[in-house]
Amino acid sequence: MNALRHTISLVSLGTFQLVRRTRGPHVRGFLLGTGLGLASFSAVTYAHSAEAVDPKVKGVQMDTSRFMAEPITDSKALLADKENMRHRMEILIMEIQAEFCRALEAEENCGQKFKVDRWERPEGGGGITCVLQDGDVFEKAGVNISVVTGSLPPAAVQQMRARGKNLKEGASLPFFASGVSAVIHPRNPHVPTIHFNYRYFEVETAKGEKQWWFGGGTDLTPYYLCEKDASHFHQTLKSACDEHDATYYPRFKKWCDDYFRIKHRNESRGIGGIFFDDIDSPNQEAAFNFVSSCAKAVIPSYVPLVRKHKNREYGNNERQWQLLRRGRYVEFNLIYDRGTKFGLYTPGARYESILMSLPLHARWEYMHEPKSQSEEGKLMKVLKNPKDWV
Amino acid sequence: MNALRHTISLVSLGTFQLVRRTRGPHVRGFLLGTGLGLASFSAVTYAHSAEAVDPKVKGVQMDTSRFMAEPITDSKALLADKENMRHRMEILIMEIQAEFCRALEAEENCGQKFKVDRWERPEGGGGITCVLQDGDVFEKAGVNISVVTGSLPPAAVQQMRARGKNLKEGASLPFFASGVSAVIHPRNPHVPTIHFNYRYFEVETAKGEKQWWFGGGTDLTPYYLCEKDASHFHQTLKSACDEHDATYYPRFKKWCDDYFRIKHRNESRGIGGIFFDDIDSPNQEAAFNFVSSCAKAVIPSYVPLVRKHKNREYGNNERQWQLLRRGRYVEFNLIYDRGTKFGLYTPGARYESILMSLPLHARWEYMHEPKSQSEEGKLMKVLKNPKDWV
Repeated sequence: MNALRHTISLVSLGTFQLVRRTRGPHVRGFLLGTGLGLASFSAVTYAHSAEAVDPKVKGVQMDTSRFMAEPITDSKALLADKENMRHRMEILIMEIQAEFCRALEAEENCGQKFKVDRWERPEGGGGITCVLQDGDVFEKAGVNISVVTGSLPPAAVQQMRARGKNLKEGASLPFFASGVSAVIHPRNPHVPTIHFNYRYFEVETAKGEKQWWFGGGTDLTPYYLCEKDASHFHQTLKSACDEHDATYYPRFKKWCDDYFRIKHRNESRGIGGIFFDDIDSPNQEAAFNFVSSCAKAVIPSYVPLVRKHKNREYGNNERQWQLLRRGRYVEFNLIYDRGTKFGLYTPGARYESILMSLPLHARWEYMHEPKSQSEEGKLMKVLKNPKDWV
Repeated sequence: MNALRHTISLVSLGTFQLVRRTRGPHVRGFLLGTGLGLASFSAVTYAHSAEAVDPKVKGVQMDTSRFMAEPITDSKALLADKENMRHRMEILIMEIQAEFCRALEAEENCGQKFKVDRWERPEGGGGITCVLQDGDVFEKAGVNISVVTGSLPPAAVQQMRARGKNLKEGASLPFFASGVSAVIHPRNPHVPTIHFNYRYFEVETAKGEKQWWFGGGTDLTPYYLCEKDASHFHQTLKSACDEHDATYYPRFKKWCDDYFRIKHRNESRGIGGIFFDDIDSPNQEAAFNFVSSCAKAVIPSYVPLVRKHKNREYGNNERQWQLLRRGRYVEFNLIYDRGTKFGLYTPGARYESILMSLPLHARWEYMHEPKSQSEEGKLMKVLKNPKDWV
């Protein structure tokens, strides 16, 4: 299934390029016949229906109706420079955002929908923030994309230098960043929280050349441990990784366990997943394909767990435990998360989009410790000592 | 009233020294006759009753029953080196902690009491953490003292150097720190949250000499603005400052406004108070006396506000607003507060004592903004633009 999703994504992106090049519905019909098949068909159909909606539009248009809002970059510009990795990434994250939001909306019982905010940044770029709050199934779900250009402050450059980037010291450097990120806090304590983030970064090196890399990850934070769910989740991510490099999953699983650690408590935020940064090999195309596969694996890794547990009964004890664990989530995000810190320290950052990751409710109790034989205690054991799930 | 409290505190501390020197109840009787009067009488009585409780105790003892727990430093050692500022500060913070905890307990309706945890730190020193959770009046109240010795990691040294301290770069330096800190989150949204912290610090300079300073402050975080309360609170702090230096209150009021700023939101955590650091003038005695006055002003600045509002009616709207503001409190403490960061990054730190400042419950709503004419909007105006209250 992952492989199929992966293909769909790539072909969809490819289709945009082809549509731009061919400039006519009949030629698009031709493309349908070249064996790209069903996957490209949907994209072509979108483009076609866009013209149908507005007959005054001249020439080839990108159909943006499948997105949550208009892309940040003008859609004509996106089509005009189709090989540009900035543009390919923007289209990917727009697709991921829309597919994920719609998959979640489909799980709501009373038709709750995401609220969509498209925002622009005076310094350059902008984003689309989608939030579903106070749903029956999702207490707070945030799915954000951003496409940002600007100038990295010297402190951020220093942080990157510390990670081994060959950047000029003490200077502000022009950068480009785009990414999709989401945190989903369901209401039912038996449904885990998921977080994912896939991003592309460009910055000027000390020599004035462009340096680029990808980063990202997906991780799960259950309130009650279901080993079968944990295995399903990890196996889905592993399959996405294995398509590209057999060493990826074990390395990025460990990286995830190391990263999402609440150091002062010596416990993990959740049961992990994958996490990686600075991916710039074997080449840009392969790196993009890998990130695309991971992003496409989010829905199959998570939505089945939502469906399985969303109607389970629970009482006040389970709710209070969920709120305590959400407090730990807040601790990690505000104290350790690099993305949150980078975001909040960036002048002009849209803090509402960064802090949408915080739960609707959280609780802090002094010296709370669950009994080791309880269900809560069982979760704590794997949070203290991360284990292998596949 | 502040002046009186101040005198009591200093005399109490002085009395410890005298008691140690004189070694006998009759001599303490003599001291009573020297004109120290009522203030010292209570302290002497404490010492006397300690001996009465345990007739086997030989020689002069410190009465520790008025504290929340035994001091961190052995009480004989505290008495033996009575001029030592480390010891004077430890006794002050023990007194402040006990007086404040008892004043809060007196406001509870059903006799709820603080839970007391005395803890030791393997690296040296320890603390006493007092928490009252789920009271009728106080949803979560934490009052902590700590007396800690150890080795400052180079990163902490670097932070201090950045503040202008003349410390050796790149080295771990031996340090001593003691302080009292408290955060009180009442249940009723009409009762403000208070925070205070008074501390004494010693570290070795680049030349191998000892450098010392005091720091501290008290600040108020209302959920609904009562201008009369705000003026009372600030006036009480101002009076404590004015006893020592007329320039203190205006300088430290501004410092407080600058410090407790949630920068990413461009709003203050609350309506301020006083905040200061690096106080090492005009001399150690005067600096200690100033800090002592401020600490003694906490109860009269705050407890009347609790009494005035604790039984006021409120509804769900007020409660939800209070929880949102508590979310902002968490943001400040975990993202910006130097004490919290310093604490959590100190190896072996007792995180439960550091994070007791977090509320029992907090809430984060995406893009919440109160109407400007509402009571909530009125508070926001002074949080956006701090004003003068006296």
